Amino acid sequence: MRPRIYLFGDSITESSFTPGGWGASLAHHFCRTADVVLRGYSGYNTRWALLVADKVFPPAEGDSHGGGAPLAVTVFFGANDACLPDRCSGFQHVPLEEYKQNLHSIVSFLKKRWPKTTIILITPPPIDEEARLQFPYVENPSGLPERTNEAASAYAKACIAAAEESGCLVVDLWTKMQEFPNWKSACLSDGLHLAETGNKIVFEEVVKKLKEQGLSLETLPVDLPLIGNIDPENPLKAFEN
Amino acid sequence: MRPRIYLFGDSITESSFTPGGWGASLAHHFCRTADVVLRGYSGYNTRWALLVADKVFPPAEGDSHGGGAPLAVTVFFGANDACLPDRCSGFQHVPLEEYKQNLHSIVSFLKKRWPKTTIILITPPPIDEEARLQFPYVENPSGLPERTNEAASAYAKACIAAAEESGCLVVDLWTKMQEFPNWKSACLSDGLHLAETGNKIVFEEVVKKLKEQGLSLETLPVDLPLIGNIDPENPLKAFEN
Repeated sequence: MRPRIYLFGDSITESSFTPGGWGASLAHHFCRTADVVLRGYSGYNTRWALLVADKVFPPAEGDSHGGGAPLAVTVFFGANDACLPDRCSGFQHVPLEEYKQNLHSIVSFLKKRWPKTTIILITPPPIDEEARLQFPYVENPSGLPERTNEAASAYAKACIAAAEESGCLVVDLWTKMQEFPNWKSACLSDGLHLAETGNKIVFEEVVKKLKEQGLSLETLPVDLPLIGNIDPENPLKAFEN
Repeated sequence: MRPRIYLFGDSITESSFTPGGWGASLAHHFCRTADVVLRGYSGYNTRWALLVADKVFPPAEGDSHGGGAPLAVTVFFGANDACLPDRCSGFQHVPLEEYKQNLHSIVSFLKKRWPKTTIILITPPPIDEEARLQFPYVENPSGLPERTNEAASAYAKACIAAAEESGCLVVDLWTKMQEFPNWKSACLSDGLHLAETGNKIVFEEVVKKLKEQGLSLETLPVDLPLIGNIDPENPLKAFEN
Protein backbone atom coordinates (compact mmCIF):
# COMPACT_ATOMS: atom_id res chain seq x y z
CA MET A 1 0.00 0.00 0.00
CA ARG A 2 1.11 3.51 -0.73
CA PRO A 3 2.41 5.64 2.11
CA ARG A 4 0.50 8.79 3.02
CA ILE A 5 1.29 12.45 3.64
CA TYR A 6 -1.31 14.29 5.72
CA LEU A 7 -2.00 18.00 5.37
CA PHE A 8 -3.47 19.23 8.68
CA GLY A 9 -4.44 22.86 8.92
CA ASP A 10 -7.00 25.62 8.49
CA SER A 11 -8.55 27.13 5.34
CA ILE A 12 -5.12 27.60 3.73
CA THR A 13 -4.89 23.81 3.83
CA GLU A 14 -8.59 23.13 3.10
CA SER A 15 -8.39 25.22 -0.09
CA SER A 16 -5.07 23.74 -1.22
CA PHE A 17 -6.65 21.64 -4.00
CA THR A 18 -7.99 24.61 -5.97
CA PRO A 19 -6.22 25.20 -9.33
CA GLY A 20 -2.52 25.73 -8.66
CA GLY A 21 -2.97 24.93 -4.95
CA TRP A 22 -0.04 23.59 -2.96
CA GLY A 23 -1.90 20.44 -1.87
CA ALA A 24 -2.83 19.47 -5.41
CA SER A 25 0.75 20.19 -6.50
CA LEU A 26 2.03 17.81 -3.82
CA ALA A 27 -0.50 15.16 -4.88
CA HIS A 28 0.66 15.53 -8.49
CA HIS A 29 4.34 15.49 -7.51
CA PHE A 30 3.87 12.24 -5.57
CA CYS A 31 1.25 10.83 -7.99
CA ARG A 32 2.99 7.43 -8.21
CA THR A 33 4.64 7.32 -4.79
CA ALA A 34 2.41 8.63 -1.97
CA ASP A 35 -1.17 9.62 -1.20
CA VAL A 36 -1.62 13.22 -0.12
CA VAL A 37 -4.51 13.30 2.34
CA LEU A 38 -6.36 16.55 2.96
CA ARG A 39 -7.30 17.42 6.53
CA GLY A 40 -7.95 21.14 6.29
CA TYR A 41 -10.57 22.78 8.52
CA SER A 42 -11.49 26.28 7.51
CA GLY A 43 -11.50 28.81 10.35
CA TYR A 44 -9.90 26.50 12.90
CA ASN A 45 -7.28 27.63 15.36
CA THR A 46 -4.89 25.40 17.34
CA ARG A 47 -7.31 25.22 20.30
CA TRP A 48 -9.99 23.59 18.18
CA ALA A 49 -7.43 21.55 16.20
CA LEU A 50 -6.14 20.04 19.43
CA LEU A 51 -9.69 19.19 20.53
CA VAL A 52 -10.35 17.23 17.32
CA ALA A 53 -6.88 15.74 16.68
CA ASP A 54 -8.00 12.30 17.85
CA LYS A 55 -10.87 12.34 15.35
CA VAL A 56 -8.75 13.73 12.51
CA PHE A 57 -6.16 10.97 13.05
CA PRO A 58 -8.06 7.92 14.29
CA PRO A 59 -5.81 5.20 15.78
CA ALA A 60 -6.80 2.63 13.13
CA GLU A 61 -5.21 4.69 10.38
CA GLY A 62 -1.83 4.11 11.98
CA ASP A 63 -1.97 0.34 12.26
CA SER A 64 -0.75 -2.13 9.73
CA HIS A 65 -4.16 -2.47 8.10
CA GLY A 66 -4.49 1.24 7.51
CA GLY A 67 -1.24 1.47 5.62
CA GLY A 68 1.14 2.00 8.53
CA ALA A 69 2.38 5.30 9.84
CA PRO A 70 2.27 8.21 7.39
CA LEU A 71 5.50 9.48 5.90
CA ALA A 72 4.78 13.01 7.01
CA VAL A 73 2.24 15.44 8.43
CA THR A 74 2.20 19.16 7.75
CA VAL A 75 0.76 21.22 10.64
CA PHE A 76 -0.27 24.62 9.35
CA PHE A 77 -2.14 26.73 11.92
CA GLY A 78 -1.78 30.22 13.30
CA ALA A 79 -3.54 32.49 10.82
CA ASN A 80 -6.74 32.24 12.90
CA ASP A 81 -5.06 32.15 16.30
CA ALA A 82 -3.49 35.48 15.32
CA CYS A 83 -6.83 37.24 14.78
CA LEU A 84 -6.80 40.22 17.15
CA PRO A 85 -9.01 39.49 20.17
CA ASP A 86 -10.89 42.80 20.12
CA ARG A 87 -11.70 42.88 16.40
CA CYS A 88 -14.37 41.33 14.19
CA SER A 89 -12.92 37.77 14.11
CA GLY A 90 -11.94 37.81 17.78
CA PHE A 91 -13.69 34.52 18.54
CA GLN A 92 -10.98 32.71 16.58
CA HIS A 93 -8.15 34.33 18.57
CA VAL A 94 -5.87 32.19 20.73
CA PRO A 95 -3.32 33.94 22.98
CA LEU A 96 0.27 33.68 21.77
CA GLU A 97 1.53 31.50 24.64
CA GLU A 98 -1.42 29.12 24.35
CA TYR A 99 -0.84 28.91 20.56
CA LYS A 100 2.73 27.81 21.14
CA GLN A 101 1.69 25.33 23.81
CA ASN A 102 -1.06 23.95 21.55
CA LEU A 103 1.48 23.38 18.76
CA HIS A 104 3.63 21.47 21.26
CA SER A 105 0.60 19.39 22.24
CA ILE A 106 -0.32 18.64 18.61
CA VAL A 107 3.28 17.58 17.92
CA SER A 108 3.31 15.39 21.05
CA PHE A 109 0.04 13.78 19.98
CA LEU A 110 1.45 13.00 16.51
CA LYS A 111 4.79 11.75 17.87
CA LYS A 112 3.04 9.44 20.30
CA ARG A 113 0.88 8.03 17.52
CA TRP A 114 3.62 7.80 14.91
CA PRO A 115 7.12 8.14 16.40
CA LYS A 116 8.91 7.99 13.05
CA THR A 117 6.65 10.27 11.02
CA THR A 118 8.18 13.53 9.78
CA ILE A 119 6.33 16.53 11.20
CA ILE A 120 6.58 19.84 9.36
CA LEU A 121 5.20 22.95 11.03
CA ILE A 122 4.33 25.82 8.70
CA THR A 123 4.12 29.36 10.07
CA PRO A 124 1.16 31.58 9.22
CA PRO A 125 1.70 33.69 6.10
CA PRO A 126 2.28 37.43 6.26
CA ILE A 127 -0.83 39.62 6.19
CA ASP A 128 -1.71 42.38 3.73
CA GLU A 129 -3.84 44.56 5.99
CA GLU A 130 -5.27 46.76 3.24
CA ALA A 131 -6.47 43.70 1.36
CA ARG A 132 -8.04 42.36 4.56
CA LEU A 133 -10.22 45.49 4.70
CA GLN A 134 -11.07 45.11 1.03
CA PHE A 135 -12.11 41.43 1.34
CA PRO A 136 -13.78 41.02 4.75
CA TYR A 137 -15.14 37.57 5.72
CA VAL A 138 -17.62 39.00 8.23
CA GLU A 139 -19.16 42.42 8.67
CA ASN A 140 -16.40 44.78 9.71
CA PRO A 141 -17.62 48.36 10.16
CA SER A 142 -14.66 49.25 12.41
CA GLY A 143 -12.32 50.15 9.57
CA LEU A 144 -9.61 48.11 11.30
CA PRO A 145 -8.32 44.80 9.87
CA GLU A 146 -9.08 41.68 11.94
CA ARG A 147 -5.50 40.48 11.37
CA THR A 148 -2.23 42.45 11.25
CA ASN A 149 1.15 41.54 9.88
CA GLU A 150 2.73 42.38 13.23
CA ALA A 151 0.59 39.80 15.01
CA ALA A 152 1.27 37.24 12.25
CA SER A 153 4.99 37.83 12.81
CA ALA A 154 4.71 37.06 16.53
CA TYR A 155 2.78 33.83 15.84
CA ALA A 156 5.26 32.84 13.15
CA LYS A 157 8.14 33.29 15.61
CA ALA A 158 6.29 31.21 18.22
CA CYS A 159 5.74 28.49 15.61
CA ILE A 160 9.44 28.44 14.74
CA ALA A 161 10.33 28.26 18.45
CA ALA A 162 7.87 25.37 19.01
CA ALA A 163 9.42 23.50 16.07
CA GLU A 164 12.94 24.01 17.39
CA GLU A 165 12.01 23.01 20.94
CA SER A 166 10.25 19.85 19.78
CA GLY A 167 12.77 18.86 17.11
CA CYS A 168 10.36 19.30 14.19
CA LEU A 169 10.99 20.81 10.79
CA VAL A 170 9.53 24.22 10.07
CA VAL A 171 8.74 26.27 6.98
CA ASP A 172 9.04 29.96 7.85
CA LEU A 173 6.40 31.05 5.39
CA TRP A 174 6.04 34.49 6.98
CA THR A 175 9.65 35.32 6.06
CA LYS A 176 9.87 33.38 2.76
CA MET A 177 6.88 35.15 1.24
CA GLN A 178 8.07 38.62 2.10
CA GLU A 179 11.31 37.96 0.24
CA PHE A 180 9.28 38.16 -2.98
CA PRO A 181 8.88 41.52 -4.71
CA ASN A 182 5.20 42.48 -4.71
CA TRP A 183 4.51 39.69 -2.23
CA LYS A 184 1.13 41.18 -1.31
CA SER A 185 -0.27 40.66 -4.79
CA ALA A 186 1.98 37.80 -5.95
CA CYS A 187 1.57 35.57 -2.89
CA LEU A 188 -1.87 36.47 -1.50
CA SER A 189 -5.35 36.60 -3.01
CA ASP A 190 -7.20 38.46 -0.25
CA GLY A 191 -4.48 39.50 2.15
CA LEU A 192 -4.43 36.08 3.84
CA HIS A 193 -5.12 33.18 1.47
CA LEU A 194 -2.60 32.07 -1.11
CA ALA A 195 -2.31 33.20 -4.71
CA GLU A 196 -0.15 31.50 -7.34
CA THR A 197 3.30 32.40 -6.00
CA GLY A 198 2.24 31.76 -2.40
CA ASN A 199 1.07 28.27 -3.31
CA LYS A 200 4.29 27.65 -5.22
CA ILE A 201 6.38 28.66 -2.21
CA VAL A 202 4.52 26.33 0.18
CA PHE A 203 4.74 23.46 -2.31
CA GLU A 204 8.46 23.95 -2.94
CA GLU A 205 9.34 24.41 0.72
CA VAL A 206 7.44 21.28 1.78
CA VAL A 207 9.11 19.25 -1.00
CA LYS A 208 12.49 20.59 0.16
CA LYS A 209 11.85 19.67 3.82
CA LEU A 210 10.66 16.19 2.86
CA LYS A 211 13.77 15.72 0.73
CA GLU A 212 15.97 16.67 3.69
CA GLN A 213 14.36 13.71 5.47
CA GLY A 214 15.07 11.37 2.56
CA LEU A 215 11.48 11.50 1.32
CA SER A 216 11.72 12.31 -2.38
CA LEU A 217 10.95 10.95 -5.83
CA GLU A 218 14.55 9.68 -5.89
CA THR A 219 14.14 7.54 -2.76
CA LEU A 220 10.47 6.54 -2.50
CA PRO A 221 9.42 3.38 -4.34
CA VAL A 222 7.27 3.86 -7.42
CA ASP A 223 3.86 2.16 -7.39
CA LEU A 224 3.95 -0.35 -10.29
CA PRO A 225 6.15 -0.19 -13.41
CA LEU A 226 6.50 3.16 -15.13
CA ILE A 227 5.62 3.14 -18.83
CA GLY A 228 9.24 4.03 -19.62
CA ASN A 229 10.36 0.81 -17.95
CA ILE A 230 7.94 -1.40 -19.87
CA ASP A 231 9.66 -3.15 -22.80
CA PRO A 232 7.62 -2.56 -25.99
CA GLU A 233 8.88 -5.91 -27.31
CA ASN A 234 7.65 -7.78 -24.23
CA PRO A 235 5.38 -5.58 -22.11
CA LEU A 236 4.14 -8.36 -19.83
CA LYS A 237 7.66 -9.03 -18.52
CA ALA A 238 7.38 -5.87 -16.37
CA PHE A 239 4.41 -7.39 -14.54
CA GLU A 240 5.88 -10.81 -13.84
CA ASN A 241 6.65 -10.13 -10.17
CA MET B 1 -12.88 7.90 9.12
CA ARG B 2 -13.61 9.62 5.87
CA PRO B 3 -14.91 7.55 2.97
CA ARG B 4 -12.80 7.33 -0.15
CA ILE B 5 -13.30 7.76 -3.89
CA TYR B 6 -10.67 6.00 -6.03
CA LEU B 7 -9.63 7.23 -9.46
CA PHE B 8 -8.28 4.23 -11.41
CA GLY B 9 -7.01 4.84 -14.90
CA ASP B 10 -4.19 5.75 -17.27
CA SER B 11 -2.29 9.02 -17.78
CA ILE B 12 -5.53 11.01 -18.04
CA THR B 13 -6.11 9.95 -14.44
CA GLU B 14 -2.46 10.14 -13.34
CA SER B 15 -2.24 13.76 -14.51
CA SER B 16 -5.59 14.77 -13.01
CA PHE B 17 -4.02 16.76 -10.14
CA THR B 18 -2.28 19.30 -12.38
CA PRO B 19 -3.75 22.84 -12.17
CA GLY B 20 -7.43 22.67 -13.12
CA GLY B 21 -7.32 18.87 -13.30
CA TRP B 22 -10.48 16.86 -12.75
CA GLY B 23 -9.00 14.83 -9.88
CA ALA B 24 -7.91 17.91 -7.94
CA SER B 25 -11.34 19.45 -8.61
CA LEU B 26 -13.01 16.37 -7.11
CA ALA B 27 -10.67 16.49 -4.11
CA HIS B 28 -11.53 20.15 -3.58
CA HIS B 29 -15.26 19.54 -4.07
CA PHE B 30 -15.23 16.79 -1.42
CA CYS B 31 -12.60 18.51 0.76
CA ARG B 32 -14.61 18.00 3.96
CA THR B 33 -16.49 14.83 3.03
CA ALA B 34 -14.36 12.25 1.19
CA ASP B 35 -10.77 11.45 0.28
CA VAL B 36 -10.07 11.30 -3.44
CA VAL B 37 -7.36 8.69 -3.96
CA LEU B 38 -5.26 8.77 -7.12
CA ARG B 39 -4.48 5.47 -8.83
CA GLY B 40 -3.49 6.63 -12.30
CA TYR B 41 -0.90 4.66 -14.28
CA SER B 42 0.40 6.46 -17.33
CA GLY B 43 0.44 4.39 -20.50
CA TYR B 44 -1.53 1.47 -19.08
CA ASN B 45 -4.20 -0.37 -21.01
CA THR B 46 -6.92 -2.63 -19.56
CA ARG B 47 -4.75 -5.75 -20.00
CA TRP B 48 -2.08 -4.36 -17.68
CA ALA B 49 -4.67 -2.75 -15.38
CA LEU B 50 -6.32 -6.13 -14.87
CA LEU B 51 -2.96 -7.74 -14.10
CA VAL B 52 -2.24 -5.22 -11.32
CA ALA B 53 -5.77 -4.67 -9.94
CA ASP B 54 -5.07 -6.79 -6.88
CA LYS B 55 -2.03 -4.63 -6.05
CA VAL B 56 -3.82 -1.36 -6.77
CA PHE B 57 -6.68 -2.35 -4.46
CA PRO B 58 -5.16 -4.52 -1.73
CA PRO B 59 -7.73 -6.45 0.32
CA ALA B 60 -6.81 -4.67 3.57
CA GLU B 61 -8.01 -1.33 2.22
CA GLY B 62 -11.51 -2.72 2.12
CA ASP B 63 -11.75 -3.98 5.67
CA SER B 64 -13.01 -2.06 8.65
CA HIS B 65 -9.53 -0.89 9.64
CA GLY B 66 -8.83 0.59 6.25
CA GLY B 67 -11.91 2.75 6.28
CA GLY B 68 -14.40 0.31 4.83
CA ALA B 69 -15.46 0.04 1.24
CA PRO B 70 -14.90 3.14 -0.89
CA LEU B 71 -17.90 5.20 -1.95
CA ALA B 72 -16.94 4.98 -5.58
CA VAL B 73 -14.28 4.01 -8.10
CA THR B 74 -13.85 5.63 -11.50
CA VAL B 75 -12.45 3.26 -14.14
CA PHE B 76 -11.01 5.28 -17.00
CA PHE B 77 -9.15 3.18 -19.59
CA GLY B 78 -9.28 2.79 -23.32
CA ALA B 79 -7.15 5.59 -24.73
CA ASN B 80 -4.14 3.25 -24.83
CA ASP B 81 -6.07 0.11 -25.76
CA ALA B 82 -7.25 2.06 -28.81
CA CYS B 83 -3.72 2.73 -30.14
CA LEU B 84 -3.65 1.22 -33.63
CA PRO B 85 -1.74 -2.09 -33.58
CA ASP B 86 0.42 -1.34 -36.61
CA ARG B 87 1.51 2.16 -35.65
CA CYS B 88 4.16 3.66 -33.38
CA SER B 89 2.42 2.94 -30.04
CA GLY B 90 1.18 -0.48 -31.11
CA PHE B 91 2.58 -2.23 -28.02
CA GLN B 92 -0.15 -0.56 -25.95
CA HIS B 93 -2.94 -1.79 -28.25
CA VAL B 94 -5.55 -4.21 -26.92
CA PRO B 95 -8.09 -5.69 -29.38
CA LEU B 96 -11.60 -4.27 -29.05
CA GLU B 97 -13.24 -7.47 -27.83
CA GLU B 98 -10.52 -8.07 -25.23
CA TYR B 99 -10.85 -4.44 -24.07
CA LYS B 100 -14.55 -4.95 -23.43
CA GLN B 101 -13.91 -8.26 -21.67
CA ASN B 102 -11.16 -6.70 -19.56
CA LEU B 103 -13.52 -3.92 -18.44
CA HIS B 104 -16.02 -6.63 -17.42
CA SER B 105 -13.26 -8.39 -15.47
CA ILE B 106 -12.17 -5.18 -13.72
CA VAL B 107 -15.79 -4.45 -12.77
CA SER B 108 -16.23 -8.04 -11.49
CA PHE B 109 -13.07 -7.71 -9.43
CA LEU B 110 -14.28 -4.45 -7.86
CA LYS B 111 -17.81 -5.78 -7.26
CA LYS B 112 -16.45 -8.88 -5.57
CA ARG B 113 -14.24 -6.77 -3.31
CA TRP B 114 -16.82 -4.08 -2.58
CA PRO B 115 -20.36 -5.10 -3.56
CA LYS B 116 -21.92 -1.74 -2.64
CA THR B 117 -19.31 0.58 -4.14
CA THR B 118 -20.46 2.77 -7.05
CA ILE B 119 -18.45 2.01 -10.17
CA ILE B 120 -18.26 4.65 -12.88
CA LEU B 121 -16.72 3.73 -16.23
CA ILE B 122 -15.43 6.63 -18.31
CA THR B 123 -15.00 6.21 -22.06
CA PRO B 124 -11.80 7.32 -23.77
CA PRO B 125 -11.92 10.93 -25.01
CA PRO B 126 -12.16 11.80 -28.69
CA ILE B 127 -8.86 12.14 -30.55
CA ASP B 128 -7.56 15.13 -32.48
CA GLU B 129 -5.40 13.33 -35.04
CA GLU B 130 -3.60 16.41 -36.32
CA ALA B 131 -2.54 17.32 -32.80
CA ARG B 132 -1.32 13.75 -32.24
CA LEU B 133 1.10 14.23 -35.14
CA GLN B 134 2.17 17.59 -33.74
CA PHE B 135 2.85 16.23 -30.22
CA PRO B 136 4.25 12.70 -30.61
CA TYR B 137 5.21 10.75 -27.46
CA VAL B 138 7.61 8.47 -29.31
CA GLU B 139 9.43 8.78 -32.62
CA ASN B 140 6.83 8.66 -35.36
CA PRO B 141 8.34 9.04 -38.83
CA SER B 142 5.32 7.38 -40.51
CA GLY B 143 3.29 10.58 -40.77
CA LEU B 144 0.28 8.63 -39.46
CA PRO B 145 -1.21 9.26 -36.00
CA GLU B 146 -0.89 6.42 -33.48
CA ARG B 147 -4.50 6.98 -32.43
CA THR B 148 -7.55 7.88 -34.53
CA ASN B 149 -10.91 9.28 -33.53
CA GLU B 150 -12.64 6.43 -35.32
CA ALA B 151 -10.87 3.86 -33.16
CA ALA B 152 -11.59 5.91 -30.02
CA SER B 153 -15.27 5.86 -31.00
CA ALA B 154 -15.33 2.07 -31.22
CA TYR B 155 -13.66 1.70 -27.81
CA ALA B 156 -16.03 4.28 -26.31
CA LYS B 157 -19.01 2.28 -27.60
CA ALA B 158 -17.57 -0.93 -26.16
CA CYS B 159 -17.07 0.82 -22.81
CA ILE B 160 -20.69 1.97 -22.79
CA ALA B 161 -21.85 -1.55 -23.65
CA ALA B 162 -19.72 -3.06 -20.87
CA ALA B 163 -21.22 -0.59 -18.39
CA GLU B 164 -24.77 -1.40 -19.48
CA GLU B 165 -24.17 -5.14 -19.40
CA SER B 166 -22.64 -5.02 -15.92
CA GLY B 167 -25.05 -2.48 -14.46
CA CYS B 168 -22.42 0.23 -13.92
CA LEU B 169 -22.66 3.94 -14.52
CA VAL B 170 -20.85 5.39 -17.49
CA VAL B 171 -19.65 8.81 -18.60
CA ASP B 172 -19.68 8.95 -22.40
CA LEU B 173 -16.78 11.35 -22.61
CA TRP B 174 -16.22 10.69 -26.31
CA THR B 175 -19.66 12.13 -27.11
CA LYS B 176 -19.82 14.82 -24.39
CA MET B 177 -16.59 16.45 -25.47
CA GLN B 178 -17.51 16.64 -29.12
CA GLU B 179 -20.66 18.55 -28.22
CA PHE B 180 -18.39 21.52 -27.41
CA PRO B 181 -17.57 23.99 -30.17
CA ASN B 182 -13.83 23.91 -30.84
CA TRP B 183 -13.56 20.73 -28.76
CA LYS B 184 -10.14 19.94 -30.20
CA SER B 185 -8.55 23.02 -28.68
CA ALA B 186 -10.96 23.59 -25.77
CA CYS B 187 -10.98 20.05 -24.41
CA LEU B 188 -7.59 18.62 -25.41
CA SER B 189 -4.02 19.78 -24.89
CA ASP B 190 -2.20 17.44 -27.28
CA GLY B 191 -4.97 15.67 -29.11
CA LEU B 192 -5.45 13.16 -26.28
CA HIS B 193 -4.86 14.61 -22.79
CA LEU B 194 -7.28 17.04 -21.22
CA ALA B 195 -7.23 20.82 -21.39
CA GLU B 196 -9.34 23.11 -19.20
CA THR B 197 -12.78 22.37 -20.65
CA GLY B 198 -12.04 18.66 -20.92
CA ASN B 199 -11.13 18.52 -17.24
CA LYS B 200 -14.26 20.48 -16.36
CA ILE B 201 -16.45 18.04 -18.29
CA VAL B 202 -14.99 14.98 -16.55
CA PHE B 203 -15.30 16.64 -13.13
CA GLU B 204 -18.89 17.72 -13.70
CA GLU B 205 -19.99 14.39 -15.18
CA VAL B 206 -18.45 12.39 -12.32
CA VAL B 207 -20.10 14.69 -9.74
CA LYS B 208 -23.42 14.23 -11.58
CA LYS B 209 -23.13 10.43 -11.63
CA LEU B 210 -22.20 10.33 -7.94
CA LYS B 211 -25.18 12.54 -7.15
CA GLU B 212 -27.49 10.15 -9.00
CA GLN B 213 -26.28 7.52 -6.52
CA GLY B 214 -26.99 9.77 -3.55
CA LEU B 215 -23.33 10.67 -3.09
CA SER B 216 -23.24 14.45 -2.90
CA LEU B 217 -22.37 17.35 -0.61
CA GLU B 218 -26.04 17.42 0.38
CA THR B 219 -26.05 13.82 1.62
CA LEU B 220 -22.51 12.97 2.76
CA PRO B 221 -21.63 13.81 6.36
CA VAL B 222 -19.23 16.71 6.88
CA ASP B 223 -16.01 15.93 8.75
CA LEU B 224 -16.13 18.08 11.93
CA PRO B 225 -18.08 21.32 12.44
CA LEU B 226 -18.01 23.87 9.65
CA ILE B 227 -16.88 27.34 10.72
CA GLY B 228 -20.34 28.67 9.82
CA ASN B 229 -21.86 26.33 12.41
CA ILE B 230 -19.53 27.38 15.21
CA ASP B 231 -21.19 29.90 17.55
CA PRO B 232 -18.88 32.94 17.97
CA GLU B 233 -20.34 33.45 21.46
CA ASN B 234 -19.52 29.90 22.51
CA PRO B 235 -17.21 28.21 20.00
CA LEU B 236 -16.39 25.19 22.16
CA LYS B 237 -20.03 24.08 22.21
CA ALA B 238 -19.63 22.81 18.61
CA PHE B 239 -16.94 20.39 19.80
CA GLU B 240 -18.77 18.94 22.79
CA ASN B 241 -19.70 15.67 21.11
